[in-house]
Formats: sequence, C-alpha cells, structure tokens
Amino acid sequence: MIAELVFVGTELLLGQILNTNAQFLSQKLSLLGIDNYYQVTVGDNPARVAETLRQALSRADVVITSGGLGPTQDDLTRDVAAEVTGRPLALDSALAAELEGWFRQRGRRMSDNNLRQCLVPHGATVLPNPNGTAPGLVVPAAENKAIILLPGPPNELRPMFDNQVVPYLTGRMDGAPLMLVTRTLRFVDIGESLLEDRLKDIISEQQDPTVAPYAQLAEVHLRLATKAASVEAGLARILPLEERIRERVGKYLYGLNETPLEEAVGQLLRERGLHLTAAESCTGGLLAKRLTDVPGSSDYFVGSFIAYANAAKTGLVGVPAELIAAHGAVSEPVAAAMAEGALNRLAADIALSITGVAGPGGGTATKPVGTVCLGLAARPGAAAGKPGHGPAEVRTLTLQLWGSRRDVRERSAQNALALLRRYILGQ
Amino acid sequence: MIAELVFVGTELLLGQILNTNAQFLSQKLSLLGIDNYYQVTVGDNPARVAETLRQALSRADVVITSGGLGPTQDDLTRDVAAEVTGRPLALDSALAAELEGWFRQRGRRMSDNNLRQCLVPHGATVLPNPNGTAPGLVVPAAENKAIILLPGPPNELRPMFDNQVVPYLTGRMDGAPLMLVTRTLRFVDIGESLLEDRLKDIISEQQDPTVAPYAQLAEVHLRLATKAASVEAGLARILPLEERIRERVGKYLYGLNETPLEEAVGQLLRERGLHLTAAESCTGGLLAKRLTDVPGSSDYFVGSFIAYANAAKTGLVGVPAELIAAHGAVSEPVAAAMAEGALNRLAADIALSITGVAGPGGGTATKPVGTVCLGLAARPGAAAGKPGHGPAEVRTLTLQLWGSRRDVRERSAQNALALLRRYILGQ
Repeated sequence: MIAELVFVGTELLLGQILNTNAQFLSQKLSLLGIDNYYQVTVGDNPARVAETLRQALSRADVVITSGGLGPTQDDLTRDVAAEVTGRPLALDSALAAELEGWFRQRGRRMSDNNLRQCLVPHGATVLPNPNGTAPGLVVPAAENKAIILLPGPPNELRPMFDNQVVPYLTGRMDGAPLMLVTRTLRFVDIGESLLEDRLKDIISEQQDPTVAPYAQLAEVHLRLATKAASVEAGLARILPLEERIRERVGKYLYGLNETPLEEAVGQLLRERGLHLTAAESCTGGLLAKRLTDVPGSSDYFVGSFIAYANAAKTGLVGVPAELIAAHGAVSEPVAAAMAEGALNRLAADIALSITGVAGPGGGTATKPVGTVCLGLAARPGAAAGKPGHGPAEVRTLTLQLWGSRRDVRERSAQNALALLRRYILGQ
Repeated sequence: MIAELVFVGTELLLGQILNTNAQFLSQKLSLLGIDNYYQVTVGDNPARVAETLRQALSRADVVITSGGLGPTQDDLTRDVAAEVTGRPLALDSALAAELEGWFRQRGRRMSDNNLRQCLVPHGATVLPNPNGTAPGLVVPAAENKAIILLPGPPNELRPMFDNQVVPYLTGRMDGAPLMLVTRTLRFVDIGESLLEDRLKDIISEQQDPTVAPYAQLAEVHLRLATKAASVEAGLARILPLEERIRERVGKYLYGLNETPLEEAVGQLLRERGLHLTAAESCTGGLLAKRLTDVPGSSDYFVGSFIAYANAAKTGLVGVPAELIAAHGAVSEPVAAAMAEGALNRLAADIALSITGVAGPGGGTATKPVGTVCLGLAARPGAAAGKPGHGPAEVRTLTLQLWGSRRDVRERSAQNALALLRRYILGQ
C-alpha cells in the first residue's frame, strides 16, 4: 500500500509552526510497512489544496491530511475533500449534539462556526476526537482509494492516528503486512566518507537489507533496514550483515539505535566500576549536562567543575597561574593540569578536561576559533577497571574544530567522550 | 517572486529526522516577502526527484532544495538538477583543490567519494560551504528560473542561506515587496492563559498588527506581526501596541525576539558589574551550559560546580553531611547551603543552586519526581550592583515540576534564571 501525506495550513508555509506531524506520521507508516514517496505542504487555498489532493490520489492508495479541520473560514480541507471525491457535505446531527455537549461540559458557548465541524461528506466515516472539537474523517474515493482527514494539533492527531487510523489501515492491507525493521549502528572517530570507503562493496552490492550512512555532528550512523513480517524475521537478515560490518570497522562502533555516546561511555564506566569527573572551560557544562542527561548516571558520574574564567581554573582545580601565563589557557599543559586537578579533588578514577576557543570572539592567529585542547587523567590501571595509586596517567590532544559556537562546543564534548572511550578500550 | 521548497531524503520519509529546515526556510522567505505555495518532501529516488523538480519549476520562479548533496551514492540532488536543467556536470578543479585542503587542515584523508561534491552543472554558481564539505549551487533553468541546491544539515544550510542565498534572492526581486515584520515579546513567571486573560481585549480587537501567544517551556511568547514596505514602517505600527502591552504585563517581559532568558539575565548582570556562580545537582550542568551558550558570558560568569552525588555536595561546596541526613539532598536548607558554599568558594557576587528529583527514578511519596529546590545566595547589596561584606542574602523555594526528565531539568534551569532575574530587579 502506498500512502501520501498532505499538510494543510498557511501557518506551515510561513514557518510559524514546526511540522512535527510529518515526522510522527512518517515513523508510523514506516513501522506499518506502508510506502510513502511524497509529502506535500500547501496553504489554506482551495484551488491549491484541490490540485494537491487530486495529484496525491493519482499516485497513492491512501492520502492522509493534517490540518484545516477547524471551525474558521480558512479551514477548508473538509470542503475540498468533499469536492475532489464528489461527495456532497451534509450536517451530521448526532455529531452536532455531541459537540454541543462538549462545549456545555466545559462551560463554553458553541459558536455557529463550530457547526462547520459537523459537516460530513456523503458516505464518509467519522473518527471521533476526544481531545478537541474537530472530528477526523475517512472519505472514500474512486478506485477503492481514500482520503483520511486528521486535525492539525499533534495532541489530537496522534491518538486519533494510533487508535482509529492504524486499525483502518491494517484492515485494508491484505495478508500479514510487512513492517520496516531497522537497526542503526553508531560510529565515532571515523568520518562518513572514510566509513563508506571501507564498506564500499557492501554498500553498493547490498540490496536487502539496505545500508545507508548518515553524517551527524562528530559521528556517523549506518542504518540497516529490511522489510519483514516480524522484528525477529527482519533481524535475522540484518544481524549477519552487521557482523560483516563489525569485522571491518567494529573498532569505531560505539552503540546501537537510539543510544547516544554519553550513554554508551557511561555503560563502559559502569561495567568497570569507574567514577568520572571533569573540568570544563569552553563547553561550560555541556559535557556534564550530556553525561547527566542519562538516567542513572549517578552510578558513575560524581560531579565536576566548570572552570570558565582563568581565575576559576586556578581556584577550582589548581592550575598554576604561571602555567596559564606560559602556555595560554588553551594549551595541552593546561588541559592536563585541569584534568589532574579535578581528579585530585574528587573521589574519581578518571577526569576529562576541555579548554578551547568556542568563538565567535577570542581567536588569535596561532589559536583561531575552534582550537580545543582535551585532557584525560586517570588513576594508573583505571582502564582495566583496577584503579591504583601513584601518579595519574595523562593523555592530551589538540583539535581544530569548525562551525558555529554551538557546533564547536558540541564537537568538543563529543570528542572528549570519544577520548574517554578510546582510553577505556585501550585504543 | 514565487519560491517552492523541495526536501530530498528518504530519512525524512521514514521519520528519522525532524524537518527543521522547512520552518527555517519558510520563515526566511516570508520575511523577504517571497511567496511560497508548496513544499514537497521526496526520497532518494532519481525519477521522483526529477518529477518533483520539474513540477516545482513549472509553478515557481525559484526552487530551493535541501539535502542530497553529500558524498555518497544516494546523494543525488546535484545529478538530478543537472539533468532537469540540461546542464552537464563537470569537475570543478578549484573546488577539488579547496576540498582537499579542507581535509588536510583537519588531518583527515579525502576519499574519492568526496570528489562527487566537486561536480558542478555547466553555468551554475558555487556557494561555498564554510561548515561542511558540500558546496551549495545556484543552477539556472529555462525562463530565467533557477534551482538553488542547499546541503541538508541545518548548521550548514542556515548560514549558507543567510549569507549567500538572501543576497541572491533580493538581487532578483524588482520593486519593494511587502515584508512580514514581527516582534516577539518574551515573558517569564506568567502562564499562557493568565497572560491571555490580562490582554483579552487587545488580542481579540487587534487586527493589524496581529497578536498571537505561543506557550514555550516555562515561558510564553507574544508575537506581534504586520506586513509593511520596510522594517521601520512595520515597527511604527508595532511599537505603540507593544507599549500598551508593557503597561499591563511589563513586569514579566524579560526580552525580545531571539533573546533567551540566559542572555537577558546575563545582560542584567553585566550592567550591574556582577559575577555569578552556581552549584547544580539534578540539572547536572544544564544551567552553566545555558549561561555559557551566550558569547561573552565570561564577563559575568566565572565558573561553577556540578555537585551531582551527595559526596560532591559536601566535597565541592561544603554542604554538611548532617544537613543532608536531616533534610534530604532535595530540600531548601541544602539548596541554601549549596548556594552559600558556591558563593564562598569563588570570587562571585551571586550564586544559584538547584537540587531536585529529575526522574524517571528517585521519587518518593513526599518528594515525587519533579520536586526541585532552588537557592540563591548573594553578597548584601548585590541586587543594587553594590555587593558588600557581611552574611549573604539567601532565598530558597520549592517547585513541583512536571514532564519528562528533560522537561524537569529544562524547567529547573529556567526557574533558577527567573529567580535570579526577580532578585536583581527587586521583585
């Protein structure tokens, strides 16, 4: 079955709202194994909505719309769908009584406008809306096709889709529908083009499951996807392919599906019983924020320092003022001293540090915006899960990052987590 | 001028990413006064992309695409645009040399795939991409039309649009079109329905400029909008209305347009020459991260403490272990001690503290998930910009927040900033 999505609303074309219905409906259709080739957004203009619905009906079995079912004059999806399918509108008196009750219950008066929401195209099925005043509609069209009209507000559209449209769609599909089964492999420390290069033959030969790389901020995702009757049947085809990929680039594979790097690294710390701290300058708390985004991160994250001003680098984590004067605050010696200082001030086994020029100001000829130094200090033997006494093991590196202030900060935190991952895994 | 937007990428049709480029481009076109009647999303399929581009060219003067310019085989927007406009692709050797330099500078190897990104349709203009490897392209089409190809990642698309596409589009426009002039008033410490209630008559009577409230996470925005020949002409209509609104609810108005609360509060600190620190538990660095999102925040933000575990509350900011034992880590006495401890450990004038149950675990009958205690400690006289000696002034409060872990953390940081704002303004 092929579905096409049509989003109706001038407010979308003006950018006044972010279209989250598109992502929601896309995900749901893909889980149901329903193909979707086009999505069209169009304003509150009857001729253009009609043209869009006609074209959508010509290339899909089911057209799903959102928006334009409200009580006002510019809500015209219902009228246009009636016109396009040749089904005249009539007032549904049961619906009108129900709507009147809805308003009475809330102590509000129903306006005449609301009666527009009780007009139903001949032969259409009404989808009750427990969360608002606009019911949904399934309007039959020629060639056993249909237009499904849904309200625009996500809190009305989502339950209506899940509870009423899904049963309708699965009822229409013949046989056991195929579902899309996907598995996302998440890589760090390798770029998109290099990853693709290493897997060139697999990616180009592979038809089913498909393999598609997606570049993210300082990481790359590889999505393996196949259609199958069940998740198990899909995974049975995906896992052998994953194994082939792991053999080549498993070193860079840090996690699966929705697992972000902070969660994967947190799991490594938890498995080894290690505790982490940090001293952040240019990221100003972003690293700690990401670590504590993960529920249960108190198992391995104790606390940390935001040493933003130079005075805080000295005052909070004991970086000697002379060291800053000699090398600059953005330097590997200072990064090392920040990490060692943090490690010595908290009962932790490993400390990360970040100091850099996030921009837009503050760059110099020798240290332009994007220059970032990372440090890691660890109790000897920490990587093996056996932290001992004696001088800390220290690693430092300098990165030249790019992009906006936000990008530089995000990439810095990401690279610090990647440094920690390499250290723990002995890479 | 009429523009049509085309978003290319199977990942959009599968719902794997939220299309924020649609809203960004829609807003920008509307600000430029360029009409936009259709937006189409299509997958990585050459025939369907070609059909979509042809149809878009038939009904618009300029077609703007995003996505499908990457180095991999399924990145096909460039090839299809060349085909649709009848302009053969050729390797641009200057571009290739530049890209090679880009990789060299970052110590990375350029793969052969990346050379695909240096193919340029005959007669097209290259839009350099300082934030990534895929350059944009302006490809001329028949009847003085054009297809503008932009990369998909928002951090690449946005600056390229602002810096390179806007000048191109305004250069093509004849006469002075009407532009949408908007002004957003940002409120904190007042809910959407109360704000609407206070402004009921204004909102309902007002036709031009229009007034529309938008609820955000722990703040409310009021957008005033009008169409005018220039920004000045639009503001001349908006400002008197803004004045009427300020007279009623100005106390809660913290900033304008794109200014987030952390920037507005930072400006208050800067004006008074005050320095801020903080001690965060459940927000785990989110407050510091938001403060340092703002360029130049080192003027007023020194550094701070993430006191996540109880041991860190004691070790880092000196909260007596007995106080935690007596009242629990999530309590106003502990919040007060965290703020005072942070204030005493750094050369700052004001300290904020946050301790709470962010969830999903950790809630109890008396302190359910969402219970958050905030503290503020300040040198006496700090609010007036004259911090003196003597015991700190301390404020604390307890909030019962709701939503996901992320929501509770965001609302906690937001409320801490609002507390600071009220303190500085003597509210």
